[in-house]
Amino acid sequence: MRRRFSERPLKVELRGRMTEQTSRTELSALGEFGLIDRIASRVQLQNASSIKGIGDDAAVIDPQGLHHVVTTDMLVEGVHFDLGYVPLKHLGYKAVVVNLSDVYAMNATPKQITVAIALSNRFPVEAVDELYEGIQLACTHYGVDLVGGDTCSSPSGLVISVTAIGSAAMEDIVYRSGAKDNDLLLVSGDLGGAYMGLQVLEREKAVFKETGAQPDLVGHDYILERQLKPEARKDIVGLLRTLGVKPTSMIDVSDGLASEALHLAHNSGLGVRIYDEKMPIDPSTYQTARDFNLDPTTCALNGGEDYELLFTIAQADYEKIKANPSLTVIGHMTDKASGCLLVDKQGGLHELRAQGWDAFLRK
Amino acid sequence: MRRRFSERPLKVELRGRMTEQTSRTELSALGEFGLIDRIASRVQLQNASSIKGIGDDAAVIDPQGLHHVVTTDMLVEGVHFDLGYVPLKHLGYKAVVVNLSDVYAMNATPKQITVAIALSNRFPVEAVDELYEGIQLACTHYGVDLVGGDTCSSPSGLVISVTAIGSAAMEDIVYRSGAKDNDLLLVSGDLGGAYMGLQVLEREKAVFKETGAQPDLVGHDYILERQLKPEARKDIVGLLRTLGVKPTSMIDVSDGLASEALHLAHNSGLGVRIYDEKMPIDPSTYQTARDFNLDPTTCALNGGEDYELLFTIAQADYEKIKANPSLTVIGHMTDKASGCLLVDKQGGLHELRAQGWDAFLRK
Repeated sequence: MRRRFSERPLKVELRGRMTEQTSRTELSALGEFGLIDRIASRVQLQNASSIKGIGDDAAVIDPQGLHHVVTTDMLVEGVHFDLGYVPLKHLGYKAVVVNLSDVYAMNATPKQITVAIALSNRFPVEAVDELYEGIQLACTHYGVDLVGGDTCSSPSGLVISVTAIGSAAMEDIVYRSGAKDNDLLLVSGDLGGAYMGLQVLEREKAVFKETGAQPDLVGHDYILERQLKPEARKDIVGLLRTLGVKPTSMIDVSDGLASEALHLAHNSGLGVRIYDEKMPIDPSTYQTARDFNLDPTTCALNGGEDYELLFTIAQADYEKIKANPSLTVIGHMTDKASGCLLVDKQGGLHELRAQGWDAFLRK
Repeated sequence: MRRRFSERPLKVELRGRMTEQTSRTELSALGEFGLIDRIASRVQLQNASSIKGIGDDAAVIDPQGLHHVVTTDMLVEGVHFDLGYVPLKHLGYKAVVVNLSDVYAMNATPKQITVAIALSNRFPVEAVDELYEGIQLACTHYGVDLVGGDTCSSPSGLVISVTAIGSAAMEDIVYRSGAKDNDLLLVSGDLGGAYMGLQVLEREKAVFKETGAQPDLVGHDYILERQLKPEARKDIVGLLRTLGVKPTSMIDVSDGLASEALHLAHNSGLGVRIYDEKMPIDPSTYQTARDFNLDPTTCALNGGEDYELLFTIAQADYEKIKANPSLTVIGHMTDKASGCLLVDKQGGLHELRAQGWDAFLRK
């Protein structure tokens, strides 16, 4: 169930300061309009629905007879990412991917994004180039057009806000609220890897701070990629369409499996049961969790940032999906009165709780 | 040409710290999902095109056979606003309005917005309530639905990113690039007021810092409102439609008249001529500029944040608009070789330069 790797493994290097570019051009030398022109000159619109991109008061989109889905996510330096070890190119890529993941979770196809960034003068033009390189790589990979946005100054940290727009026929859109009693609960790929990647990076950062030693990341390629360069499950949406399966409800796993399963249950007015032994965890995630004295199941339930798709299907559709290595049945929906439960390997029942990432509790 | 006032004048009070609310509930007591529920519970969708609002992975919009326009603007504390004197309610209102202004500048009707905010723990829940009160006031006033967004933590300042989505028939959309040689150049309302309002607020802030004295803002109601609670020119778009005039090009005045006129000229491949004596400046803007030893024309040309509409019309349409007190003809387009010029009151010619606000030069 492991996803494909990039063509070449990620190269992660810890940096005392993220602005150690070899050449440095001040943003003030370009100015805001100069920067926008620089970004715009590298954008090639690829969708026929993108009538007008960067360069006017607003972008213009032709819905082509479909409905639109719209989603926004903001990433803040020091909260969502640490430029001590996150390469700006990966950050740009990830900022787009987390939004596209929301579009796929509606069973829609992303078509356009806008990107607003606030950044301080400590970032040179070269850093902005690197960030947009990642943004554009994601655009190319997912067939999405960068059609607008905003660039502005920030007193300190970097903030990126991406809005993604997708399209779908009204009848194809899948909400969180459509699950039925007895529907099967499935998840794509595997869980907990991004969280364990973060743990490794944080550990190596602490070592680097103390000793200045570059990190030993051998053998952690998979979980580092899960954290630093996640992908949105475009392939799963395509696969389900090919198999002739329309999920009854769907959500993407950003805050952790437990939190998302509770969303599906609550929004559908149901209960849910998840089986510990069914949970897909990659061996490298499992081993790293053990090395950190963490319970792999807890990491999978509450780690978050997996950007997998969690969805329900009617039991009648089971035959269509059962042999697929990208999909795992991890439980089923129940009536509301039965509650939201985790079934452990001994058959014991535990109330499912969302202990996932919470923006305001974490700090 | 002065716009209507609010029902009651603005009350501006300087604050040493913006967080001096009478009651204080910590954000951590609500958590991210609690905060989203709190916001969502106050939202009433008003547009039939808003199929699904807050509460799923993405909002769903029915284009109803029209094209969509999309625009994003980000406001950053310490760069775009100073919470020492900007009430949070006004800030929320303004964050929406600056985006709607871009939608109107496309000759489209705004229908939905998403709002992403990053805020630190120094903000209590009451402060967030105040901010969203302003956002919702703008939504109600402009007939727009808040359909989604993101709330997250910030290490220090407040950041607001708004994306506005509007709709229009393809043939009604007006770009910056459609002006023709000899077209008349018009602007709505008056210019320079928001900039002078900012000067007054900055002056009074300096006095407050030194002496603790609350500001003397008597007689500055109009320019303060222009700065703190601007409106987008929905009425002008409606008026032009009623008059049967479709602008050949249009832009909103956010960075200053000079900057925007240059955009229209460059994007249309033309030159432009603006007449100093024609520029609409409110008497209170004029007088305050004089009191500050500033040239009122310079304030109007480069002040920015007026959120008026600057547009061109064919000469043949002049009869339809000439008697209207909300519109002023301030110049005309020329061929490109004639350049972009300001004609002073003595008939002298000066090259038009954009000295407007530049995010990266200002700091």
